[in-house]
Amino acid sequence: MEKEVVKDIARMDEDFSKWYTDIVTKAGLVDYSPVKGFMVIKPYGYEIWENIQKELDKKFKETGHKNAYFPLLIPESMLNIEKEHVEGFAPEVAWVTHGGEEKLEERLCIRPTSETIIATMYAKWVKSYRDLPVLINQWANVVRWEKTTRPFLRTTEFLWQEGHTLHETSEEAMDETIKMLNIYAELFEEFLAIPVIKGEKSNKEKFAGAENTFTIEALMHDGKALQSATSHYFGDRFAKAYNIKYQGRDSKEATPFQTSWGMSTRSIGGIIMTHGDERGLKLPPKVAPIQVIIVPFAQHKEGVLEEVDKLRITLKNKFRIEADIRDSYTPGYKCNDSELKGIPVRIEIGPKDIEKGECILFRRDTYEKKSVSLDNLENEIERLLEDIQKNMFEMAKENRTNKTHVAKSLDEIKEILSKEQSLIKTAWCGDRECEDRLKEETSATIRCIPFDEEKIADTCGLCSKTANNTVYLAKQY
Amino acid sequence: MEKEVVKDIARMDEDFSKWYTDIVTKAGLVDYSPVKGFMVIKPYGYEIWENIQKELDKKFKETGHKNAYFPLLIPESMLNIEKEHVEGFAPEVAWVTHGGEEKLEERLCIRPTSETIIATMYAKWVKSYRDLPVLINQWANVVRWEKTTRPFLRTTEFLWQEGHTLHETSEEAMDETIKMLNIYAELFEEFLAIPVIKGEKSNKEKFAGAENTFTIEALMHDGKALQSATSHYFGDRFAKAYNIKYQGRDSKEATPFQTSWGMSTRSIGGIIMTHGDERGLKLPPKVAPIQVIIVPFAQHKEGVLEEVDKLRITLKNKFRIEADIRDSYTPGYKCNDSELKGIPVRIEIGPKDIEKGECILFRRDTYEKKSVSLDNLENEIERLLEDIQKNMFEMAKENRTNKTHVAKSLDEIKEILSKEQSLIKTAWCGDRECEDRLKEETSATIRCIPFDEEKIADTCGLCSKTANNTVYLAKQY
Repeated sequence: MEKEVVKDIARMDEDFSKWYTDIVTKAGLVDYSPVKGFMVIKPYGYEIWENIQKELDKKFKETGHKNAYFPLLIPESMLNIEKEHVEGFAPEVAWVTHGGEEKLEERLCIRPTSETIIATMYAKWVKSYRDLPVLINQWANVVRWEKTTRPFLRTTEFLWQEGHTLHETSEEAMDETIKMLNIYAELFEEFLAIPVIKGEKSNKEKFAGAENTFTIEALMHDGKALQSATSHYFGDRFAKAYNIKYQGRDSKEATPFQTSWGMSTRSIGGIIMTHGDERGLKLPPKVAPIQVIIVPFAQHKEGVLEEVDKLRITLKNKFRIEADIRDSYTPGYKCNDSELKGIPVRIEIGPKDIEKGECILFRRDTYEKKSVSLDNLENEIERLLEDIQKNMFEMAKENRTNKTHVAKSLDEIKEILSKEQSLIKTAWCGDRECEDRLKEETSATIRCIPFDEEKIADTCGLCSKTANNTVYLAKQY
Repeated sequence: MEKEVVKDIARMDEDFSKWYTDIVTKAGLVDYSPVKGFMVIKPYGYEIWENIQKELDKKFKETGHKNAYFPLLIPESMLNIEKEHVEGFAPEVAWVTHGGEEKLEERLCIRPTSETIIATMYAKWVKSYRDLPVLINQWANVVRWEKTTRPFLRTTEFLWQEGHTLHETSEEAMDETIKMLNIYAELFEEFLAIPVIKGEKSNKEKFAGAENTFTIEALMHDGKALQSATSHYFGDRFAKAYNIKYQGRDSKEATPFQTSWGMSTRSIGGIIMTHGDERGLKLPPKVAPIQVIIVPFAQHKEGVLEEVDKLRITLKNKFRIEADIRDSYTPGYKCNDSELKGIPVRIEIGPKDIEKGECILFRRDTYEKKSVSLDNLENEIERLLEDIQKNMFEMAKENRTNKTHVAKSLDEIKEILSKEQSLIKTAWCGDRECEDRLKEETSATIRCIPFDEEKIADTCGLCSKTANNTVYLAKQY
């Protein structure tokens, strides 16, 4: 019985994809829905999202942004205004054609993203330079009709936030674009313990309709990259297409500059694939719905459950804590279950421990156990959680370092990828043909041109022309 | 210029409907969208919703509920399972027929409410009595294809929460139904300062598919009632229809009992129409996005803006406070603007006040002003906000009392309604015919059978039969 939980999970080195599916379902994060491509986010998964929301929303508000809410449905004609944008999104939207019993005069799409409706409203709202900047974010659901879906990583409907801002100058808009990228990077590194690479997307990979797309890319356990959040600079393209104009400081009519930036429930997939291990999910303390779980041993013995409850009540003002006092499971089963669920710290306590005024603290990241005095428990746990948060980031970084290689030719790239999925740094001439060829021959893509670009070669790793950039390549989710 | 803001608002006693529309748009709560029937919730309106969410979510969690997220789209066949439910909702759903370029095999509706998809998932999740109770809530958007829409009150898309629970016994489910109704009543009375009547809906007015629907009804300034939140008891109907079964304590197969309960952005319409006045919106301090606004006088004079900023910084840890230091508006305009926006407390401060170490405190509910020492400002404001919250509830209650009448015959009902829209208490035999006749002849409806039923007559106020209940009647939003 004790091994029951663990046995059910595929080995990550044997079948990473099945391991992932096992974790998301068995740890109780999501369930498949009868509606193809749609997932149900179960309470334990949704609590992770709530913690991310709370943290990110705080950062947005601290930087002067406000939330608002725009319509779910967008008329076809409104989607069609910006050419590149519609080409990118029209093939993957869901269309509403009937309202009640009646056929609609114009069909409406469920928002795949909200640039079009938001730009339409901004055109009504912005009249003068005094109305700028506009700094608005929306927490919402969006729908993109995907052919192949996986929980969190790619689902037909997902939850996200999308920020949409307007500025007087292009410099200010570009500053905002980078500022928001940095906020995402901070969230990922400091809150989710996921190291990311900040960089710019190639023309091929940028958002439909954007001038520049910036990204944070994270490397998963299996050596594939996950685009984790993006921030787009639009210049004045959307503003011109949607006729947003204002009277400038010089009383002349001007067009504002625009940005948008987003992050989604996909990030939960990133947490799983960065930190998870053979025993299951492993959650960084800051985002964990349950930071500490108490597992009683011999809970039928006198005084055990009382002590457990006393501990829980003492500690609950400080930590997100629960006690697993189910009487239909053994302590061993509960321990495995808490590891499957990725709970950072476990308190094990039985009659002998209570006698000695002690308990066992187990840390999920390293599997280490130690005895601690009940008198000093709060401080010990506080320090432990901090240490786990830090250590998980370091472990993830080490894993990324081990899986990062430099290649100077397509042959080298192929050789590296034939051994294991990796993040590969190479030089690039900047041409689309090289990018297409890379994908065709290796199925890897250029993930980004990193901000901290160090020159690694004079010639493109994909052709023989002069290199203009250093880039990161990888297969992607 | 000073009267500019106020002049634009229709008088509430002359055209309540236009007054309402003026308030919601001019106070910056919403805007109309180019998509018919859909509203855009602007930042100031959305902040009210965020405050409501935070308070209600806390209450849900304190009572053991967890949040989750279920799919936006529901297959037609799934909607069709429970007969009464589909009859109630099918005429008003939006239908998705195409995903990308392809026609769907089965059309999907955008959720008008989620009983069907949630019951389908619960059938998968619940196996044993140990899995009960299931206490789940969802914050989501829903769509109902409405013919006539008004911001907040009735919109094609709205934001809400919907709780869906399962229980072992019918008593436990009924307890939950009433518990959640009480939580709504508490939210409305203590947080939104809106007095409500708790009661049960008649068979005609109950939720499609429910056994019993309970409601809280509030009376608006114009004498019409607003159904403000509802809580439904389903018995085992949905569970049977959707095949939710579990193994009971006696090892026999059993069917659980179910509830659902919801509250929406409609509540913001209730705040406006309960508290608003000739000067605009009037927000209860607990829900107000800005609780205190500082309006400087002669802000160009030395030291004024410095003092304003000092005050703002000192007070901002305690209150939601802003300073209106725009240099393109007069103090008079700013005062009117703060009243239009319903900000509970205004601090007016100019060079002479600063010299005396004083400022003026203005309260939005009674228009009273008083001088207070800057040394004691924090305490004064704290007391003032508490007093405003309490007083707004009392004012609303008094208004309701003034507009509540007892009638013992249809003629009396008609006479009262011919004078002014009112809440009318009468006796009712319980027959649907009387209910239909009431609506036909007066356009009022039975709002609820109140919990604190006091007998007011032996015979039905609509026919001559024996009365079985006391009911409240009103025209409704």
